Amino acid sequence: MPEIHRLDSRDAEFASRLDALLTWESVADEGVISIVNEILGAVRERGDAALLEYTARFDRLVLDRGSDLEVPAERLAQALDSLPSAQREALHLAAERIRAYAERQRLESWEYTEADGTVLGQQVSPLDRVGLYVPGGKAAYPSSVLMNAVPAKVAGVGELIMVVPAPGGEFNELVLAAAAVAGVDRVFTIGGAQAVAALAYGTETVPAVDKIVGPGNIYVAAAKRQVYGTVGIDMIAGPSEILIVCDGQTDPDWIAVDLFSQAEHDEDAQAIMLCPDADYIDRVAAAMDELLAEMPRADIIRTSLRVRGALIRVRDMDEAVALANHIAPEHLELSVAEPDALAARIHHAGAMFLGRYTAEALGDYCAGPNHVLPTSRTARFSSPLGVYDFQKRASIIRCSAEGAGVLGQTASVLARGEGLIAHARSAEYRLSDQKD
Amino acid sequence: MPEIHRLDSRDAEFASRLDALLTWESVADEGVISIVNEILGAVRERGDAALLEYTARFDRLVLDRGSDLEVPAERLAQALDSLPSAQREALHLAAERIRAYAERQRLESWEYTEADGTVLGQQVSPLDRVGLYVPGGKAAYPSSVLMNAVPAKVAGVGELIMVVPAPGGEFNELVLAAAAVAGVDRVFTIGGAQAVAALAYGTETVPAVDKIVGPGNIYVAAAKRQVYGTVGIDMIAGPSEILIVCDGQTDPDWIAVDLFSQAEHDEDAQAIMLCPDADYIDRVAAAMDELLAEMPRADIIRTSLRVRGALIRVRDMDEAVALANHIAPEHLELSVAEPDALAARIHHAGAMFLGRYTAEALGDYCAGPNHVLPTSRTARFSSPLGVYDFQKRASIIRCSAEGAGVLGQTASVLARGEGLIAHARSAEYRLSDQKD
Repeated sequence: MPEIHRLDSRDAEFASRLDALLTWESVADEGVISIVNEILGAVRERGDAALLEYTARFDRLVLDRGSDLEVPAERLAQALDSLPSAQREALHLAAERIRAYAERQRLESWEYTEADGTVLGQQVSPLDRVGLYVPGGKAAYPSSVLMNAVPAKVAGVGELIMVVPAPGGEFNELVLAAAAVAGVDRVFTIGGAQAVAALAYGTETVPAVDKIVGPGNIYVAAAKRQVYGTVGIDMIAGPSEILIVCDGQTDPDWIAVDLFSQAEHDEDAQAIMLCPDADYIDRVAAAMDELLAEMPRADIIRTSLRVRGALIRVRDMDEAVALANHIAPEHLELSVAEPDALAARIHHAGAMFLGRYTAEALGDYCAGPNHVLPTSRTARFSSPLGVYDFQKRASIIRCSAEGAGVLGQTASVLARGEGLIAHARSAEYRLSDQKD
Repeated sequence: MPEIHRLDSRDAEFASRLDALLTWESVADEGVISIVNEILGAVRERGDAALLEYTARFDRLVLDRGSDLEVPAERLAQALDSLPSAQREALHLAAERIRAYAERQRLESWEYTEADGTVLGQQVSPLDRVGLYVPGGKAAYPSSVLMNAVPAKVAGVGELIMVVPAPGGEFNELVLAAAAVAGVDRVFTIGGAQAVAALAYGTETVPAVDKIVGPGNIYVAAAKRQVYGTVGIDMIAGPSEILIVCDGQTDPDWIAVDLFSQAEHDEDAQAIMLCPDADYIDRVAAAMDELLAEMPRADIIRTSLRVRGALIRVRDMDEAVALANHIAPEHLELSVAEPDALAARIHHAGAMFLGRYTAEALGDYCAGPNHVLPTSRTARFSSPLGVYDFQKRASIIRCSAEGAGVLGQTASVLARGEGLIAHARSAEYRLSDQKD
């Protein structure tokens, strides 16, 4: 049997055992923060010179000038053209589906006119420039490039700047190809906290952006936290999670590999199944036992399951729904006969995969919705990455003289109630009969 | 003449002088962070007991039990009923207008079915529980209560918890009345970092929430930053700002008090006017000189104008637009003859006030749009507070067996390209002809 927590909701200890399992404290390491602050300061102050030094030191990539850090568009196109056609077609199909879904998310401006002629509205505009962080080296995910870049382009972001380190000068061809497919505008071979600094503050070579998105290691995450406010950022991602609710009728092999698909990301990833059928749970455990050896990342999977994984027997589907809402998972598979009815009762989840055929992996790569999702129970207040993350709103007010009359009276009363007399006077000046 | 920076865009030094003026570094004070961390830890660990201790210490309000911290609904209703009718009516009118505008912002769920039967969608749901921080004592702003609470209610938030300290046991009646008008569900007399902790972690008396909004002092702001991730938060607000673009045709008194209306908030607030007419700028300065003495908060206004205020002569309206986009102001008044044309060219602003009659104060209190706006150039990537801040999305995918076929092929190719074999296998299992 694979080592994995086995819980039963009937146990007196169940609630506390579950919460212990769900706990994830990402403690900010003071050493990391200190290093990151030093790097941020150095790049802010010395620009390209600092970038080149850090790139030589951390990426073993020695370049002479800032402009050498840029990867020309031709190199991206070449990476795409050189791919095996199956990979190129897969990238195109995935990008197209992500784009089609994202198009439906786009916010539009609106306004309306009131009876007294006052106009109120909301003007939506894209961000000017966005930075996309892409990890380099072997653990490089072209799907991440698509998922971060395509919504930005759909939003109409003016310029999309990708940064991706090239350790020892080595590129991941799929990452470059994905950048070409997604319409990334410029690419720089920088990484780590220094890349975040370059994007946040700008250097001679790297333009300053308005928002930085994309996953990275703890230095990247810490750097993003530090620059938040100077630029916008996406959420800091915690470990990957899958919660599978199963009625006991799905092929156990399917459930086993779905749990593995999350566990293989990271030792800290969390894979949990809820099911009312104890015998079925045993069958899934047996399937996991049998299939684990076939997985290249078996060691990572094993650790993840042992430390943070769980197979949980629940009383019934009602309890499964309640637990799912409590857990608020990043990915929720509803591997049941009637998933729609269950889905309607789920309040907190990043992405829901309805029905036995909908493996989470389909969403990770190409179904269309984004794979950048809220983790660590942040689905209680956060959403998947989307086009809306690359758009912003400005409110519009245009008062007619008449409208300024009624509103001015009300504003005056409320402002005076708050002791803000200049506010009151500025409203009162617009009244037909001015107060003294 | 009031002391205020006088700039001219033709000066060689203009750009650097302007950027020096715009600079706002909110440096996190290590002493504050240390105190805040201690308070957060104490409340997390000792719940109500810690809350009562801090409330006695910082608010000089000594209570026996946690339940004494709650303000009963009757007290809110009493505050509302006891108001002078002009104030009560003003609160109702403002709340109604804020609600009407917010209704238009509400996001709705959607889904669509593809040719192969695959369903993709976005399920929108409100946050379960939101905490609203309201500063106490004399500097209390009932308008803040309305602006934070009404959108949450429009979103359908399950429970809205307000925290407001009562220094020495003293309440601001307008704040309590506003809470009644806005439909706040529960109110607790706690403040500072301890209130943020109670909301983030929950105590015996105070329920844990999913998001905390509302402005507060530096301890509150630091506490919000620390708990971000455990709960959601709104942006940390910087000092208030107004940028007025004027064509030189508005009554200078109006512009003077509009600038005062921001400056009176805070010594750090920023009030700036752009105008192509140098003589008109002098007339505004003269009006400011004359009217300043009438302002109860003249000292605050004077400091704000002297340190961070500016009257800037620009070449023409084109330059004004370019500068406005660079400044990305929280509030932008377009005090010009044809504001619509200018507004369409503005990319970065929190709220725009079109035409001479639209004093910013009208938006602050009752026009409808929210007065919680992005400051410190964050309008480049941030938006006003809105209903969307209290809603979240979950993506929906439901693949038919056929849909899982095409998508499975693509996911398999991409997953194998990323070395994530369990992902590939989980997709491949759903294919009609399974790979080995």
